[in-house]
Amino acid sequence: MTTPNLEQAIDRSGGNPAKMLRADARGPYQFPIPQMEYANWRDEQRVWRESAIFFDQSFHMSDVYFRGPDAKRLFSEVGVNSFRTFGRDKAKQFVATNPRGHVIGDAILFGLDEEEYALVGSPVAANWVQFHAETGDYKVDVERDDASPINPRERLLFRYQVQGPAALEIVRKASGGTLGPVKFFNIGEFQIAGVTVRALNHTMVGIPGQEHTGLEIFGPREHSAPVKEALLEAGSGLGMLQGGAVSYPTTSNESGWIARPLPAIYTGDDMRAYREHLPAHGFEAHASLGGSFVSDSIEDYYLTPYDLGYGRVVSFDHDFIGREALEQIAVAPPRRKVWLDWDAGDTGHVLTSSLFASGRGAKYLSLPAGGYSLIHYDRVLLDRTGVGVAMDPMFTMNHGNVTSLASIDAGLAEDGQRLTLVWGDEASIGVKPQVEPHRETEVRVTVRTSPRTSQGARR
Amino acid sequence: MTTPNLEQAIDRSGGNPAKMLRADARGPYQFPIPQMEYANWRDEQRVWRESAIFFDQSFHMSDVYFRGPDAKRLFSEVGVNSFRTFGRDKAKQFVATNPRGHVIGDAILFGLDEEEYALVGSPVAANWVQFHAETGDYKVDVERDDASPINPRERLLFRYQVQGPAALEIVRKASGGTLGPVKFFNIGEFQIAGVTVRALNHTMVGIPGQEHTGLEIFGPREHSAPVKEALLEAGSGLGMLQGGAVSYPTTSNESGWIARPLPAIYTGDDMRAYREHLPAHGFEAHASLGGSFVSDSIEDYYLTPYDLGYGRVVSFDHDFIGREALEQIAVAPPRRKVWLDWDAGDTGHVLTSSLFASGRGAKYLSLPAGGYSLIHYDRVLLDRTGVGVAMDPMFTMNHGNVTSLASIDAGLAEDGQRLTLVWGDEASIGVKPQVEPHRETEVRVTVRTSPRTSQGARR
Repeated sequence: MTTPNLEQAIDRSGGNPAKMLRADARGPYQFPIPQMEYANWRDEQRVWRESAIFFDQSFHMSDVYFRGPDAKRLFSEVGVNSFRTFGRDKAKQFVATNPRGHVIGDAILFGLDEEEYALVGSPVAANWVQFHAETGDYKVDVERDDASPINPRERLLFRYQVQGPAALEIVRKASGGTLGPVKFFNIGEFQIAGVTVRALNHTMVGIPGQEHTGLEIFGPREHSAPVKEALLEAGSGLGMLQGGAVSYPTTSNESGWIARPLPAIYTGDDMRAYREHLPAHGFEAHASLGGSFVSDSIEDYYLTPYDLGYGRVVSFDHDFIGREALEQIAVAPPRRKVWLDWDAGDTGHVLTSSLFASGRGAKYLSLPAGGYSLIHYDRVLLDRTGVGVAMDPMFTMNHGNVTSLASIDAGLAEDGQRLTLVWGDEASIGVKPQVEPHRETEVRVTVRTSPRTSQGARR
Repeated sequence: MTTPNLEQAIDRSGGNPAKMLRADARGPYQFPIPQMEYANWRDEQRVWRESAIFFDQSFHMSDVYFRGPDAKRLFSEVGVNSFRTFGRDKAKQFVATNPRGHVIGDAILFGLDEEEYALVGSPVAANWVQFHAETGDYKVDVERDDASPINPRERLLFRYQVQGPAALEIVRKASGGTLGPVKFFNIGEFQIAGVTVRALNHTMVGIPGQEHTGLEIFGPREHSAPVKEALLEAGSGLGMLQGGAVSYPTTSNESGWIARPLPAIYTGDDMRAYREHLPAHGFEAHASLGGSFVSDSIEDYYLTPYDLGYGRVVSFDHDFIGREALEQIAVAPPRRKVWLDWDAGDTGHVLTSSLFASGRGAKYLSLPAGGYSLIHYDRVLLDRTGVGVAMDPMFTMNHGNVTSLASIDAGLAEDGQRLTLVWGDEASIGVKPQVEPHRETEVRVTVRTSPRTSQGARR
């Protein structure tokens, strides 16, 4: 008997992956950050625009290492990104698609050395790359260092995030002046508390690459304590707060990163070998789907890099899986990624209706993050016609309202365009334990095509 | 050098225990129940009125055992309760007061045997009884089995709660018919999955002793798994859900149990020896105080058994600490415990103002439990004059609104009496990490003097 795999899990569930994932009982990802809140999620959000936030990311992400002479070629052949100038001390938002150009997953790819790379983030992209490393013609060794909840060992690294306008000053202070210039999406090396650390310059909040510098600092786990202490100490006089598991995922809502698109792996004979490679109880097999967007065809949940705002990272300077399909899509991408700002009055109605309605009210909107499954897709309408899908409704104090990230018809991706989002999930009543009896409710939303700058944030 | 103690902690903080506890950074108690939600907190609340809820209480309570020939005399001399008929297989809501009749704490006292008793609940009452066991003239041995987060060992028992109208049927089914009649607040013994268990008949939801039977089932920890499995299996066809850490504390809001009154131990020369006995970093030293009721005199936070609705358990058939004071108070108790039902419109205003106000809005009200400190006291007003304190605002689907439990002037404790509750805590802005910038907001509330029956619950 062979080990049960994802393909068999789909068969056993009745053969329809959309139904399988819509019925999956898994709730939203519980970030294994030690505390839910360190201050309170409102102030934690506020400081990442006004001062800085410290997040301990040592636990919740998969780090998968790819080492060997063919590592760079592997990523180049699996990823949509250009690898012409990639190497040590460079980083990328790595995006992988299936042969039809649908996104499987994305993660941050760290160039640790010329022949050593790490994919850090959700395990979806790393699983796909690992599959090719192991089944393709590559001289590459793979080492997994999974997220703490599924990792039988101690993690290899600590990983501390300092984000916000004061981040650079704080890290410089903690480094005792050893931090030199680090370009955006480059990796620097310096000292904190006598420990040699490396750090990625990137942006979890604000406008990526444009506003301020955020640093993701990592080093050997055995030196975690003094580094953390030095960073917290350096930030304490500058208004920095430590952020907890509640505020953490809401950073993506401001920066515009769609954290969990559905991996486009559930259909296609050319993807069968991969489904047979994946376990029957891994992330992909339990990628629970919730929200008002309901289809029996799983492919309706697939998204291209263009749908997700990754057009800028697709490069046809190399051959990669999905290239042909993406070259066709690139001519006129049908969808664009936008922010959908919820009408405050309608949001208030959702909240009060869910609590006080005498019969069935609206679906309860938990705050600050409204999603109740691993992957959340809501229906977006114009004149009662579907024009896209909206993900992960979240409130942040800096936005001052609830915002969904969405992928909508490109012709409607204009600032100020009014649309309607359907909040609720009547199809999941009695199916998903997270969904109580309710009625779906329409929420007026307004399209925004770029992140809000700090200037535009609520004060 | 002696070990630092609570008395020294108060001195070091500046000598004012009210200021010390108002400034304490500890947030609300994080119940170490394995999951935050098993279904969702709305449905978990609903089923304890419609079917049954299963709570795993094996982790969050202190169990302190008192064994020996003088154990019963110890409880009788420290507690306000009558012990005339107490003994094996009986239980009590044990209440202890200081010499002035102010409540120190309460917990459930289990009569495990004629010379073996266990106090189960928050550690406050048990700490006080243990002090007397160790310093008084009692032949009593004390064994502590603290809550999991502060217990270096494995817990001694499993403890499973089945509550709701279907509870008795479910436990009977799981017991294979071995469960015989158990009177209210008595302890029965029967078998589940081949394991001998004991169970307290009590009520966490609904009207204590009047509505339905709830059972708290306990036995040796090593047999926890098969018993839990049998109970979940027995309940699965009857609509029972497992309840998580989010819904758990909201049971008390329906039954009317004020879970965390401030322990009346911080003042008085006659209590000094106890403060010198308590550690500098125990529960009492970090009993953080939040809410709109702000006083620099800690005694303003003290409450008598009558203030908390425990008049029925005070018995003058024996001598006990606080008896003289309580005999005087009993003549005309100045306060009464009531429920304060929040106006739905005002609650909606609090919610939307906290999220959408352009300047400072109302204090964010987290749901279902609004408290943000270990102990929460809000101001209650009539015509702008203080008439009492309100604790632990919570929303339950069965109430269909937010309700605070309160202790108010006895003359105002009439069903339908309109009062005002002040929601917010401006004094804590910049002091308590849980409190974001906000403005205090008045909420209209209506007095209710008894719990709502299932009939009165929102359907």
